[in-house]
Amino acid sequence: MAEAAAIGELLLIGIGTGNPDHVTGEAAHALRTADLVLIPRKGADKADLADLRRDICGRILGADGRLVEFDLPVRDASGDYLAGVDAWHDAIAAAWRAAAQRAGRALRGGAGPRVALLVWGDPSLYDSSLRIARRLDPMPRIRVVPGITALQALCAAHAIPFNTVGAPVMVTTGRRLRDRGWPEGVDRVAVMLDGGGAFQALDPAGVEIWWGAYLGMDNQVLIQGPLGEVGARILSTRAEARRAHGWIMDVYILHRHGGDTGAAR
Amino acid sequence: MAEAAAIGELLLIGIGTGNPDHVTGEAAHALRTADLVLIPRKGADKADLADLRRDICGRILGADGRLVEFDLPVRDASGDYLAGVDAWHDAIAAAWRAAAQRAGRALRGGAGPRVALLVWGDPSLYDSSLRIARRLDPMPRIRVVPGITALQALCAAHAIPFNTVGAPVMVTTGRRLRDRGWPEGVDRVAVMLDGGGAFQALDPAGVEIWWGAYLGMDNQVLIQGPLGEVGARILSTRAEARRAHGWIMDVYILHRHGGDTGAAR
Ligand SMILES: C[S@@+](CC[C@H](N)C(=O)[O-])C[C@H]1O[C@@H](n2cnc3c(N)ncnc32)[C@H](O)[C@@H]1O
Ligand SMILES: C[S@@+](CC[C@H](N)C(=O)[O-])C[C@H]1O[C@@H](n2cnc3c(N)ncnc32)[C@H](O)[C@@H]1O
Repeated sequence: MAEAAAIGELLLIGIGTGNPDHVTGEAAHALRTADLVLIPRKGADKADLADLRRDICGRILGADGRLVEFDLPVRDASGDYLAGVDAWHDAIAAAWRAAAQRAGRALRGGAGPRVALLVWGDPSLYDSSLRIARRLDPMPRIRVVPGITALQALCAAHAIPFNTVGAPVMVTTGRRLRDRGWPEGVDRVAVMLDGGGAFQALDPAGVEIWWGAYLGMDNQVLIQGPLGEVGARILSTRAEARRAHGWIMDVYILHRHGGDTGAAR
Repeated sequence: MAEAAAIGELLLIGIGTGNPDHVTGEAAHALRTADLVLIPRKGADKADLADLRRDICGRILGADGRLVEFDLPVRDASGDYLAGVDAWHDAIAAAWRAAAQRAGRALRGGAGPRVALLVWGDPSLYDSSLRIARRLDPMPRIRVVPGITALQALCAAHAIPFNTVGAPVMVTTGRRLRDRGWPEGVDRVAVMLDGGGAFQALDPAGVEIWWGAYLGMDNQVLIQGPLGEVGARILSTRAEARRAHGWIMDVYILHRHGGDTGAAR
């Protein structure tokens, strides 16, 4: 028997960051054109996120049979970090391919099925799906559908601009902020992927923070104010929410007034 | 007769950047809750954009009477730039208020109408609506609904990530890039609001560009490659498209390889 065709086309569909109403018309249309929708089963703590994906599919596709669940491979955290991530991405690409082949045998003959993945937020922002997709061999056609990011949900919830007039903004990670302090050349910084409180590495004088967790979800939390005044409250709120909930996702924007503040100490 | 109530609540609704399917479910719901939708009439060259707003309203609201057109005040370009912008923003706030009052007399009695504005892209990204809204006196309740930005449309169209793994990205303007050269501390820069070819201020060696104009629209144009090879083609394509069309909106991401390239010359 001939082997089932590989993935013919891969749709990376941004679904926004927790609110099913973040989904765009374009995302809904793209989802409807898919032959298969792959849903990763993650650890139990993030079951809410898998549920959100199923909920979005249910709203858009009804109860049809296109959903295929698969176990997301687990990253080997022993040994070299980069090598671990590399092997993990290969394993995820293989898992996508295997799930699509199992489910896709009957579909589209030689062309290979059109497979959709629902990507948290926007597939372009700190997400590895695009890089994993490039490891598929043969590489399918890739189509990206943008989605509302956590940064946009943060700005909207606080009703603040991302940038100040004509000025630049840096988007960076908690790790970078912690290791290198306030970045050169900008007074405004958006921080993602912070394992917790990287802003403690900064001198808080003259720094304002807008923080949000679980953005777009029912349990959304917002705190805003001078970093020196609200920093401790953010840390305790974060720790408590994480304990109560099992996991947390949070993001923040920092702005410094005056040029001499915010240096790493 | 008592004066009509001021704007009670202002909805700044992000509508994405040219493709009516960028609109999210949240944006559509918000639009439906509005008493009035203000549509600015701009210069004839940007008539397409006003048409897109009307098209989106038509799809979501049908042919109902909530749309109110108003003439966008013209900025006084003589004299000091910042003072001109300041006066202009005041004039726009006054125009919003007057349009809402004219149309809203019969609505909501004392509470004042809920007024929606459809904002290009995301209201948080290089857009003055939030700042103008803060000038309304009395200041209404403000609700922001995020929308797909030009940067997201760019990344999706090229199927590229916004950031490289764990690394920061700077979002800046053409003017800053031209005046200050490659920003400190980042190898990746997203450039908006470029009047044309600010990247010419950079040494192109080792720099890659992903450029897009009219993103999300039928006449979308994409060019990508080493800046030294494609820079001139971007400039001529841009000039030609602008002439043919009457206006252009374009955006790009630059990435430099190796640390010693990309300095302003
Ligand atoms: C792997 S990145 C993915 C970002 C996603 N692609 C996006 O467009 O927002 C995960 C990080 O995004 C942020 N994040 C994602 N969803 C969030 C939410 N609902 N609330 C707060 N932060 C969120 C957090 O900083 C988290 O560490
Ligand atoms: C005043 S800013 C508004 C940005 C908008 N709020 C957003 O979220 O994308 C206008 C700039 O956005 C970019 N832009 C907006 N729409 C675009 C489109 N459809 N194609 C290319 N660039 C676009 C251009 O750089 C333009 O100079």
